[in-house]
Amino acid sequence: MLDFMHYLPTRFVFGRSAEDKAGEMVRTCGGTRVLVHFGGGSAVKSGLLDRITASLEAAGLEYITLGGAQPNPVASKVYEGIDIIRKNNLDFVLGVGGGSTLDSSKAMALGAVYDGDFWDFFSGKALPKAHLPMGAVITLAASGSESSNSAVIMKDETMEKRGLNVEFNRPVFALMNPERTFTLPPYQTACGATDIMAHVLERYFTNETCVDLTDRMCEAVLNAVIAAAHKAMKDPCDYDARAQLMWAGTIAHNDTVGVGRLGDWASHRIEHELSAKYGVAHGAGLAVVFPAWMRYHLNLKHDVARFARLAVNVFGCEMNFANPEATAWEGVERFEAFLTSIGMPVTFRQMGGDPADIPALAESTKKDAQGLVGNFTRLDTAAVETILRLSDR
Amino acid sequence: MLDFMHYLPTRFVFGRSAEDKAGEMVRTCGGTRVLVHFGGGSAVKSGLLDRITASLEAAGLEYITLGGAQPNPVASKVYEGIDIIRKNNLDFVLGVGGGSTLDSSKAMALGAVYDGDFWDFFSGKALPKAHLPMGAVITLAASGSESSNSAVIMKDETMEKRGLNVEFNRPVFALMNPERTFTLPPYQTACGATDIMAHVLERYFTNETCVDLTDRMCEAVLNAVIAAAHKAMKDPCDYDARAQLMWAGTIAHNDTVGVGRLGDWASHRIEHELSAKYGVAHGAGLAVVFPAWMRYHLNLKHDVARFARLAVNVFGCEMNFANPEATAWEGVERFEAFLTSIGMPVTFRQMGGDPADIPALAESTKKDAQGLVGNFTRLDTAAVETILRLSDR
Repeated sequence: MLDFMHYLPTRFVFGRSAEDKAGEMVRTCGGTRVLVHFGGGSAVKSGLLDRITASLEAAGLEYITLGGAQPNPVASKVYEGIDIIRKNNLDFVLGVGGGSTLDSSKAMALGAVYDGDFWDFFSGKALPKAHLPMGAVITLAASGSESSNSAVIMKDETMEKRGLNVEFNRPVFALMNPERTFTLPPYQTACGATDIMAHVLERYFTNETCVDLTDRMCEAVLNAVIAAAHKAMKDPCDYDARAQLMWAGTIAHNDTVGVGRLGDWASHRIEHELSAKYGVAHGAGLAVVFPAWMRYHLNLKHDVARFARLAVNVFGCEMNFANPEATAWEGVERFEAFLTSIGMPVTFRQMGGDPADIPALAESTKKDAQGLVGNFTRLDTAAVETILRLSDR
Repeated sequence: MLDFMHYLPTRFVFGRSAEDKAGEMVRTCGGTRVLVHFGGGSAVKSGLLDRITASLEAAGLEYITLGGAQPNPVASKVYEGIDIIRKNNLDFVLGVGGGSTLDSSKAMALGAVYDGDFWDFFSGKALPKAHLPMGAVITLAASGSESSNSAVIMKDETMEKRGLNVEFNRPVFALMNPERTFTLPPYQTACGATDIMAHVLERYFTNETCVDLTDRMCEAVLNAVIAAAHKAMKDPCDYDARAQLMWAGTIAHNDTVGVGRLGDWASHRIEHELSAKYGVAHGAGLAVVFPAWMRYHLNLKHDVARFARLAVNVFGCEMNFANPEATAWEGVERFEAFLTSIGMPVTFRQMGGDPADIPALAESTKKDAQGLVGNFTRLDTAAVETILRLSDR
């Protein structure tokens, strides 16, 4: 188990009518003039935006709204938000929507108090030293952005998609009403469930030993997501299934299940290239990449025991004590079968990929200074290409 | 699943040498003049106190030390601490020790900024409206006091033991070095493991439905504690077992596994009378009360399914699908067998109780305005007496 520091400053308000606390929570967290950044028209149509602005008004707060966040958050929208914040001297950013909207809002909150170009943070040129406080009202159980230290932004011109993990990125509050996810189409619900599972699996696949407690917590979240995803797909208005997914999405990505272990994160890096290239939803891209990543490591026979454990404790496989590797492979197959059952693509072509792109995608996948990505094993460009080819079946 | 608010402001520093961060963390949290409150001589003998004061000095902080916290924290020590804080104009309380020391420190931090008697908070006469910031350095994995909203104090004269759950009670930081628990005798290690399990079980036994995710997380923590307790008993210097126990103790009692559900807490209330009367360790008292509480509810056939689930998912029982009640009972027996295997008493007399005291203990157990205690079922004095008699076998 690794030494760690853990600090989670987000105030969670979870349940029916959570959004009505917007004004009170902004005040509690010191905001007075608010940029309300939201996504598509659904926040307007559903009446959510009205509820939020009414709550801000009731608390005597001034605000400006900015709509039009994109499914893959683009830098141009961030510049627009920063401009509005500066011109109007705003002191709080409230993101209303899914992960993309929240990530854009995080980037605005960092960029508004920085003299240079906010992209400096995402390109690795500079580290943020301050931010405006930022709150979240979520409408999608997926990204965990409502309390994670992550934000991912895509540069419009180059379609580079880059992530930034800093403590400043954690929202000061998160308002979470599962009812707000009732109107999500099944495909988006499934993408969200897959994203949540991937956030847990990235942490689960570690070489750190003696992490029994967090191993078990990871398995608990995975099992709960599998059970709830099926229910929410069948009945989109099943409050309790939506509630399980929503809270699972939060703890999957705020290190509640990840302290003391070094996660992998190669699948996320590889996926960013797929969603940037093909505009595919992040969850769908992960459904293609993660099983292939597993196959790659099982071919290497890297920590077969951990794969077998996952197969038994999460995917309900019976342990083959004489041949744990067989159990491990069965687990990967059951994972893919689960993903297929909720309507996710699991091969490169199902996702709409062109195999001819694979070498370029492997090449452009962001690596570290050593030209490698991932921690469970360290992957070079050739290894990433192998993984993408394993997804092309 | 119930609506909830959740906010955990504690900054965790976990791992080897965590105590060396004392000065830095006090500074980060705004302290300048520190009361260092510690327990018995072990913090001195082990060199822990020296490490902490050296760290405070290195950070340029003034401090006064106050030793002598008792295993069951007494009000007189709290008055002493409050007096020192006021006379010396201190602005931060740092508790160093186990749950009793931390609970006393919490009471000092509340009482020092209150005009009346701090006991008003524990007797229910007043609610705290302010506090001094309070940090924790823990030497025992048990109470979860390092990030819980709880404190329990005993009045010296009357031996009344009363708890107070308020958000002000959450430490602003917790320094957690598992090595600091290597010197604990096996009996104390076992008491700690039992206390941790009880904190989870109090939350696990709820009538709330659709709490699958937190059910599974509760089971994860229980399983991890069972595995680690045996290892730590066998090899007190097993860092990883100690680390699992230490982090389990924290998340067992800071609502990481308890959000969205109403816990029971009758066993804790009943146990407070036992430790006040017989001076028995809290964990040992819980080992006697909790299985009896379970027997009482199984006799009532109250939510047999939940008991069967616990039996299968935590105590390794095979599900008797034709007779879930048999599985449920087997789970209780295995729980008791586990407690016995780590050296805990499981009957009233093993603990040193005198059965003649039972009616008075049932009578004095703190009830609410309706004269009842607990939530899984609501217990009156007669029911508490029945539970205590079930523990006298």
